Amino acid sequence: MKPLRHPGLLAAIVCLIATTLPSLAAGQAGRGGQQTPQVVSPEVGSDSRITFRLYAPQAEAVRVNGSDIPDLGQTGVMTKDAEGVWTFTTNPLPPGAYRYNFNVDGLSVVDPRSPATSTSNNNVWSLALVPGSDLFDTRNVPHGAVSTVTYYSEPLGRHRQMRVYTPPGYESGTGEYPVFYLLHGASDSDDSWSSVGRAAVILDNLIAAGQAEPMIMVMPAGHTNGPTPGMGGPAPSRPAGPGEPDEFTRDFTGAIRPYIESHYRVINDRAHRAIAGLSMGGSQTLNIAIPHLEDFSYVGVFSSGILGGGGRGRGRGGVSSTPDAPFGQAWEKQHMAMLDNAGAKDGLKLVWFSIGVDDFLLDTSRATVALLERHGFDVESTETGGGHTWLNWRDYLSEFAPRLFK
Amino acid sequence: MKPLRHPGLLAAIVCLIATTLPSLAAGQAGRGGQQTPQVVSPEVGSDSRITFRLYAPQAEAVRVNGSDIPDLGQTGVMTKDAEGVWTFTTNPLPPGAYRYNFNVDGLSVVDPRSPATSTSNNNVWSLALVPGSDLFDTRNVPHGAVSTVTYYSEPLGRHRQMRVYTPPGYESGTGEYPVFYLLHGASDSDDSWSSVGRAAVILDNLIAAGQAEPMIMVMPAGHTNGPTPGMGGPAPSRPAGPGEPDEFTRDFTGAIRPYIESHYRVINDRAHRAIAGLSMGGSQTLNIAIPHLEDFSYVGVFSSGILGGGGRGRGRGGVSSTPDAPFGQAWEKQHMAMLDNAGAKDGLKLVWFSIGVDDFLLDTSRATVALLERHGFDVESTETGGGHTWLNWRDYLSEFAPRLFK
Repeated sequence: MKPLRHPGLLAAIVCLIATTLPSLAAGQAGRGGQQTPQVVSPEVGSDSRITFRLYAPQAEAVRVNGSDIPDLGQTGVMTKDAEGVWTFTTNPLPPGAYRYNFNVDGLSVVDPRSPATSTSNNNVWSLALVPGSDLFDTRNVPHGAVSTVTYYSEPLGRHRQMRVYTPPGYESGTGEYPVFYLLHGASDSDDSWSSVGRAAVILDNLIAAGQAEPMIMVMPAGHTNGPTPGMGGPAPSRPAGPGEPDEFTRDFTGAIRPYIESHYRVINDRAHRAIAGLSMGGSQTLNIAIPHLEDFSYVGVFSSGILGGGGRGRGRGGVSSTPDAPFGQAWEKQHMAMLDNAGAKDGLKLVWFSIGVDDFLLDTSRATVALLERHGFDVESTETGGGHTWLNWRDYLSEFAPRLFK
Repeated sequence: MKPLRHPGLLAAIVCLIATTLPSLAAGQAGRGGQQTPQVVSPEVGSDSRITFRLYAPQAEAVRVNGSDIPDLGQTGVMTKDAEGVWTFTTNPLPPGAYRYNFNVDGLSVVDPRSPATSTSNNNVWSLALVPGSDLFDTRNVPHGAVSTVTYYSEPLGRHRQMRVYTPPGYESGTGEYPVFYLLHGASDSDDSWSSVGRAAVILDNLIAAGQAEPMIMVMPAGHTNGPTPGMGGPAPSRPAGPGEPDEFTRDFTGAIRPYIESHYRVINDRAHRAIAGLSMGGSQTLNIAIPHLEDFSYVGVFSSGILGGGGRGRGRGGVSSTPDAPFGQAWEKQHMAMLDNAGAKDGLKLVWFSIGVDDFLLDTSRATVALLERHGFDVESTETGGGHTWLNWRDYLSEFAPRLFK
């Protein structure tokens, strides 16, 4: 053979090493070291169907779970071929990102053939992307960046983590920006809005289209009782004492906001501060914003309301030990002063609720809107199709963000 | 029952919802819906042993894989208790981060009880953290941020992703900083240096201790042929044509560097530009830096050398079709002009090699050092204990970074 002459050949050799090492490291060989089928998963067809595949010849029953995948429910039963590869193909799906995992004989398994993930509070999901949306696709527009930020929370006495979207041009510029705090749900982590929620992509696309103002978008970790990835095991959770806000509110007020306002170039006034959240994060949004209305001009509640509201308004999420009390009575009492503070309400530019008519929190959301309206809030409330899923939350963000800071 | 009076109770209710929803969503219930044991995994003891646990009652054989875990090798055979929980406890481990997954009857499974992950090119690992190091632990010092940056690569005609560490104070300040490009290995992704590699934590700690200069650290995706998480399926890889550099070099030169230099406040001269990489990334470092010595003052090669060097110097990684040629002959010819350019060498402040004596690339590394020295390079070469693992690469970064920009 001739000596190597082309850099292309060297590249090919590096490639060969590159493709050999990972399989050695990952220990992917089957029993006895025989070659296993190199399945492709997930595969997204041009018809927007996702095909999931898993090589698991010894498994007895394999399902694909993905609570956001329409029509899948708990029925994503996969079928096995002669080689031991399990397959399931969805119906055509709307553009967006979909969390999924496999249930293999009762064991929860992320897709071993895909590096794309979305992190939740307690576990990690695989992530599949269905393209076809001007808002959710990564497009050739100026891109912001999403930072993983580690901060020490004095109120909680430990390190915490959040994600911060900075708009295109932030890192090289000198401008100051408004700040939008965006909170996740109970099944999520600080990663969720920028992975399954496509929040940074949505902002990039809205800003490029001139539909949203450039802004800093802060996505904190709403759970305070779980492990923080990259920082070791679970941190102890201390329940709030009497009269004391919950841990997340204390973290938000005493650590997250001060960190953002001292570490980023923000326009630091009420008119340039917004907050919104989905599900648990919508409830946290109300807990944070209502007692401090003077701090926020824009408040968004996605698929949520006062959780633990109790009484006639409660849905499945409306857990309460006072089933006969009027909806939100305890919450109402706690926040009475601010609820009725007309002056603070005057500076509010938008209180925006949206929920799907199939959402189990629909009644909670409606009752919360009614409660706020009883106290003189001017609430803009929308009901959409769909349920308690990221399909709606991406849409809600896409509708809410253009309303901010204008 | 009394009506709710304390915000603490409301917090507890939110907590209840928070802990109920995820398990509904994750479909964690076993067959027939019975309660499954809520195992803790990974658990890191005060003696620095990691205990891994997996509930998999139907599995026949479960191993824990973790190529960086000393003494584990391929022998991490887990044992099953009467409830169906598999367990393995390691020996006491040095402080650091450890990638692992479970092999369940041949199926590769990340830890369903942990949200901490490290992403590779083709798959995702779980990540366990053993504390106890002033360099690798998250400590209460000023923290930088790690951005996930999406950029459009004109040379490759598609979107790509990289991580960018900005030092403490960057986002609020106006200063300009030197840039350190840090490349990963073949079993890694752009996520690896900041997850298993602890690179941002190491820089934070070194900067806080006054041992490293504040710098921007860019961690690109070294693979060009795999899927980009969050951007859909695999992109087509185009082999380099005759005389054309490989895809990564073209991406680095034509997209990554220009993006960093136009989007960040960098000190844009040779004296403030460094590059280093591990394994495949060390080879890429040489391919990028040697033909463009005029651009770099600091070059680091961790556990690597000229991959595909051939001849007497080759180790297991030294794949070559010219086994009898002198080591690196083709590479040497290709880069001859720059290898012998004394002027360009004059501006080099550090060429630093380090490798473990048990590393399968030891001969490749030694031969590469010899080749460079034959061409008049002043190489600083260190051999350490250990092999081709992150245990060494975290140490090498900790030694190399303090040498930069001084």
